[in-house]
Amino acid sequence: MAGPGARAQVAKAGGLPNLVLIIADDLGWGDLGCYGSQSIATPHLDRLAIEGARMTNFFSSAAVCSPSRAGLLTGRYPPRTGITQVLFPRNSVPDLILRAAGIPPGLPLDEVTLADLLRKRGYATAAIGKWHLGDRPEYRPTQRGFDYYFGPLYSNDMKPFELYRGNEVVEPAPADQDLLTQKYTAEALGFIERSQPKPFFLYLPHTFPHRPLHASKEFRGSSQAGLYGDTVEEIDWSTGQILEALARHGLDQNTLILFTSDNGPWFQGSPGGYRGRKNETFDGGMRVPLLARWPDRIPPGRVSDGMGMNLDLFTTLLAAAGAPPPSDRPIDGQDLLPLLAGNSPSPHQALYFYQGSELQAIRVGNWKFHRRHRVLVYPFGKQGPWLFDLEKDPNESYDCSLKYPEKARKLEQMMLDWEATFQAR
Amino acid sequence: MAGPGARAQVAKAGGLPNLVLIIADDLGWGDLGCYGSQSIATPHLDRLAIEGARMTNFFSSAAVCSPSRAGLLTGRYPPRTGITQVLFPRNSVPDLILRAAGIPPGLPLDEVTLADLLRKRGYATAAIGKWHLGDRPEYRPTQRGFDYYFGPLYSNDMKPFELYRGNEVVEPAPADQDLLTQKYTAEALGFIERSQPKPFFLYLPHTFPHRPLHASKEFRGSSQAGLYGDTVEEIDWSTGQILEALARHGLDQNTLILFTSDNGPWFQGSPGGYRGRKNETFDGGMRVPLLARWPDRIPPGRVSDGMGMNLDLFTTLLAAAGAPPPSDRPIDGQDLLPLLAGNSPSPHQALYFYQGSELQAIRVGNWKFHRRHRVLVYPFGKQGPWLFDLEKDPNESYDCSLKYPEKARKLEQMMLDWEATFQAR
Repeated sequence: MAGPGARAQVAKAGGLPNLVLIIADDLGWGDLGCYGSQSIATPHLDRLAIEGARMTNFFSSAAVCSPSRAGLLTGRYPPRTGITQVLFPRNSVPDLILRAAGIPPGLPLDEVTLADLLRKRGYATAAIGKWHLGDRPEYRPTQRGFDYYFGPLYSNDMKPFELYRGNEVVEPAPADQDLLTQKYTAEALGFIERSQPKPFFLYLPHTFPHRPLHASKEFRGSSQAGLYGDTVEEIDWSTGQILEALARHGLDQNTLILFTSDNGPWFQGSPGGYRGRKNETFDGGMRVPLLARWPDRIPPGRVSDGMGMNLDLFTTLLAAAGAPPPSDRPIDGQDLLPLLAGNSPSPHQALYFYQGSELQAIRVGNWKFHRRHRVLVYPFGKQGPWLFDLEKDPNESYDCSLKYPEKARKLEQMMLDWEATFQAR
Repeated sequence: MAGPGARAQVAKAGGLPNLVLIIADDLGWGDLGCYGSQSIATPHLDRLAIEGARMTNFFSSAAVCSPSRAGLLTGRYPPRTGITQVLFPRNSVPDLILRAAGIPPGLPLDEVTLADLLRKRGYATAAIGKWHLGDRPEYRPTQRGFDYYFGPLYSNDMKPFELYRGNEVVEPAPADQDLLTQKYTAEALGFIERSQPKPFFLYLPHTFPHRPLHASKEFRGSSQAGLYGDTVEEIDWSTGQILEALARHGLDQNTLILFTSDNGPWFQGSPGGYRGRKNETFDGGMRVPLLARWPDRIPPGRVSDGMGMNLDLFTTLLAAAGAPPPSDRPIDGQDLLPLLAGNSPSPHQALYFYQGSELQAIRVGNWKFHRRHRVLVYPFGKQGPWLFDLEKDPNESYDCSLKYPEKARKLEQMMLDWEATFQAR
C-alpha cells in the first residue's frame, strides 16, 4: 500500500493523517495490561490495542537506547548509521572514550531522519522527550527535522540533566524529574493544539521507566508494581490525554498513533517471561510492545504475530503520509500498514539482531539462530551457536542445532550473506 | 513427625523406609512436564508427582553446585560449612586460588553428612554420580558416610574427567560421557539389588543437564528440546528404571524417592519464566523442582506451595528413617514430611538466599527482599534494595519497597538479626 496508491488512498480519506509516535524507555514486553501485566493498569494503552492493532513479534532495532532510536528515525539497522553505542553528554569521560573509538558524537549529519522527510511533506514536526542522538548543537532535534523540541538530550541517569526548549536550556540541571511526564504531556497537547490545520508529526519519547524512576505525586503508589509501575501508569495517563485531545480537536479518526519501547527492561521491569533484558539480543532485550491505532485505516482488535522491527516505523509512517523513503541508501524498514490494516503477513523474510556492531542473531519464521557470542550468564564465556525453535521454546532455552543442522547452517549462511552485502558507514 | 513418634510410626508401617535421593545438575524449574514443560517429556518424573507430592516453592540452598550439595548433605546453610564456592580438581589453578582464599578443599571433615547418620542408623549407603565436595582422598564419598561410590568427583567440564569406583579410578580421563546416565542407572539398580534386606539410602546426583551435554544413542534426538532435553529425558528414563526395580523387589510402597536439582539452569535450560539463572539469587537461579513419592506415607497428587529448601531434605530423610539430627551444631533444615504427607504449612518462617558467603535475599511468605547487591545486568553495578511481592510479581520485576516501607524494613532487620546469630565456621 506504499507508493502512489497509498498516497491516493490517503487523499481520499480526507487529507494527510496526523502521526503520533510514542516510545517508552526500557519498558518491557510484559509491562502493559494488553500484553498480560496483572499489576500495571494501562487502560488507555490497552484502548489502542482494542481500537487498533497489537503486534506480538515486534522488536527494537537494538537492545540499548541510542542505537534503537537511530534505527527508528532512519529506518536503517543501527550499524549503518554508526550509532552502535549509547551516547553520553559531550566531553564527559565516556563521551571522550566513544569519540576516541570512532563512534560519531550524534546521528551522522548525512543521515536522513523521519522528521526531515515528514517536514518536507508538509508536516509540522515536534520531538518532546528524550533525544539521545547527540547533544552538540548540530545534532540536536531542531537540526534533524523537528520544528520544535522540548526535553532532555539524553538519559535521565546522565549529568547534567537539563531540559531544553529548542536550543535553549529552560530548566537547568538538576531538572525536577517528578513532573517530567506531566510536562511532556502538556507540551504534546500544546503542539497538537497549535499545529493545525497543518498535519503534524508528534514524536514523544518518554524518559521512563528508565531509571532513576520518578512519578508525579498523583501517580506515586498508583500501581501494584512499585514506582516502576507508577511511571508506566503515568505514561498510560499521558496517552489518554493525547487521545482526548485528538477527539476534542476532531482529529480522532485520521490520526495514526503508535506506541512502542526502545528496548527490553533493564534492572526492573518485566520481559514477559522472555529470556534476557536490556543489552541482550535474547528476546527479553529486544521484543517490545507495538500498538497502532488509526480508525480511518486500521480495523479494531487486530492482533498480528507477523515479525516487525522499529526500523519499520520509519517506512510505515512515510507510507501513511504518502512520502517516499530515501532512494539513495539502503533502507531496512518495511511498510507495516498492510499487516496492521489488513491481514498481510510480515514483509520481512528475516530480522537481524545486533549488539553494538556485532551481528549476533537472526530470526526467520519461528526460528532464531544465535552465533557464538558472549551471554550474560556467569562466567561470561562465549556460548553457542544455538538454534532455537521459538514455537516450542519461546524462552530460547534449548539449542536444537544438532537436531536441525541444515536449518542452523542455512540461517548462519543468511547471516554471512547479509554481512557480505551490508554497508556500514 | 520427627523424633520418637515418627520412629514408632515407621516401625508400624513395616520397617525403615528405603531412601532414594535423585538430583539433576543445573536442571531448571521449567524443564519437567509436571512443571509445565511442553517440549521435554518426563512421564516417570511426572509419575512421582501424580503418585506423590510436588512442591512449587522449593529452593536450592545455593545457585551453584558445590555449596548446594554441601547444604543438601549437612542440612546447614552453605556458609556454615565453608563451602561457598564451586570446588575444582586438586592442584588445578582455580583450586590453588580457592585454597589461598581459605576455601576448604572439600566438605570439612567435622561436618556430619546425611550418609553418616543413615549408615549409623543401619542403612546401606551409596553415592552414584557427581560428588563435587572434595576430591582429595579424605574428602571422598567413601570417607563421608557412603559404603559405596561410583562416579566422577566433580563437574563434567572439569579435567581430568575420570570415573571412580570407591577410591579407584575405573575409567580414566577422558571418560565417555555419552553413557554416563546409563552407567549410573546400572550402578543404582545393582545397589538396590544387593543392599537388601538392609534398608538403603541411594544418593544419585546425575551429571546432566550440566554442560557439556551428552546422551546415549537411544536418547539423542528424543526430545523436542535439543540435546539438553534429551539428557533430561534420559534422566527421566533412569528414574523409571529405578521405580521398576523397586516394584520388582517388592519395595515400592515403603521407599521414599525424592527428586530435585542443585540449582537453576545455566546457559541453556528453562527457569520456567522466573527471573535469573544459575549463580543468581533470583528465583530462576534457586527455585527448583521437588518431587516426593512414598506410597506408605504420602498421599497421591499433593501439590504444596509451602516454602522449602534442599537443606530440609537432610532433616526430612532423617525423620523418615527415625534418626535424630545432630544436636551439637545449628541445623537449618526442617522436616518436610508433615507438609508432604499432610496439609501442614511450611515449617519455615523465612528462607535465606546466599551467593557465596554474601547473604543477598530473604523470603517470608509471598515477600522477597533483596539487599543491594550486584546483579547480572549490564553494566553490573550494585542494585537494590528491592522488595518484591511474589504473589503479584512472581518474576521479581517490580520493587515495591516505597509502597511497603515497613515490610522492607522488617525483612532487612530479619536479615541483620539472622546474621548476628549466624555461626559461620
